[in-house]
Amino acid sequence: MGKYKIEVCYSPALFPFYENREAVVVVTDILRASSAIVTAFMNGVERIIPVGTLEEARAYKEKGYMVAAERDGIVRDFADFGNSPYNFSPDRVHGNQIVYSTTNGTNAIHLASSGSQVLIGAYLNISALAGHIISSEKDLLILCAGWKNRFNLEDTLFAGALSRMVLEDERFYTICDAALGAIDLYDLAQGDMMGYMEKVAQRHRLRKNNLDDVIGYCHESDLTDLIPVLKDGHLVRL
Amino acid sequence: MGKYKIEVCYSPALFPFYENREAVVVVTDILRASSAIVTAFMNGVERIIPVGTLEEARAYKEKGYMVAAERDGIVRDFADFGNSPYNFSPDRVHGNQIVYSTTNGTNAIHLASSGSQVLIGAYLNISALAGHIISSEKDLLILCAGWKNRFNLEDTLFAGALSRMVLEDERFYTICDAALGAIDLYDLAQGDMMGYMEKVAQRHRLRKNNLDDVIGYCHESDLTDLIPVLKDGHLVRL
Repeated sequence: MGKYKIEVCYSPALFPFYENREAVVVVTDILRASSAIVTAFMNGVERIIPVGTLEEARAYKEKGYMVAAERDGIVRDFADFGNSPYNFSPDRVHGNQIVYSTTNGTNAIHLASSGSQVLIGAYLNISALAGHIISSEKDLLILCAGWKNRFNLEDTLFAGALSRMVLEDERFYTICDAALGAIDLYDLAQGDMMGYMEKVAQRHRLRKNNLDDVIGYCHESDLTDLIPVLKDGHLVRL
Repeated sequence: MGKYKIEVCYSPALFPFYENREAVVVVTDILRASSAIVTAFMNGVERIIPVGTLEEARAYKEKGYMVAAERDGIVRDFADFGNSPYNFSPDRVHGNQIVYSTTNGTNAIHLASSGSQVLIGAYLNISALAGHIISSEKDLLILCAGWKNRFNLEDTLFAGALSRMVLEDERFYTICDAALGAIDLYDLAQGDMMGYMEKVAQRHRLRKNNLDDVIGYCHESDLTDLIPVLKDGHLVRL
């Protein structure tokens, strides 16, 4: 048995039962917040300020900040843009600070801050992330943002993928049922990820609003080595 | 698409996000409370009084009731017996009322009482349960008792098995990610359930206390048609 344990938490509402102050906490919200945040760093954003409420986001907007804000996938009228990774293009984000509020992702980031380090994880940076976690020699806790505190499959599959990569280093182990379930579901899905995603609830939600164009992109692996990390309440490059 | 939806809730702590007053709620705690409760009815128990705290259980004991009470798999000293289905033998339970308090199961039963009907589900009565749910023509919500509010695999596999059975009636459907994940995990495990159970955390907990002798029994299907139902706060035969 290894020294460092891997656990997966399927919902922010379950976080109190998994909390681990020694762990590196990876927050993931594959469709679409964590994929969008990683994309923003790829495209040169300087800093992302995650805020919980739309009121906070609006207050930042009035102070002149560029604001990304959505609820249930819909861009809010006062915001500069929403939650699609495609919105975080170099011309918009390069060198800028962006305030970001989303349905599920921001709350998860705030919760996770009780851990020893908070990282943002997506397929886009998964190998860099696994490498960093392994070299950090700490427990790993993956926090799935879920959907309004409900379990979702897309974050679970990512948790399985990341767990599997980190477990390749034999100093890591898991006896967490949620991690074991996530790994099994990832193994089942990974041969035909887009086929598997057909049944996922969030795909239907996005399709209804014509926002499902990003699903393929959000499942591309290793487009970057950048890892967003939470520092003094803001996300910056690790 | 069918008329009646199936949803699965992986933890009592997530129940507020799944609550459905129109639904039949099936509470399951395969290792071991729901399997023990079904066994008690098979062996002629008259009524089971689920209580949340050990204090309540002790108070009933002092009033002369027979009490089953455990925490973390260990029988409490004041109790007549614990949580093993083997404890609920005919000579002990036939014609009796039993007060029952367990780590995870009792709390789940109390939560579920906001539904239109609360049933206790186990492999032991799974086909009878599926038949009753189908004929009840209502939504189905399966509440996994979990482990101290954490996700567990054994309850999830049962939720997948029951969902699959009920979905054979085309008036039922699911778009719930937790139900879909449970079905996939059940499909994966069901060819070699005892092999799959090797990795489940609860198996290790039970083995540590020499309590894992019941795992095979708790996964036997259709030993009875009896379905325990919650009525005025007590479990009785449907």
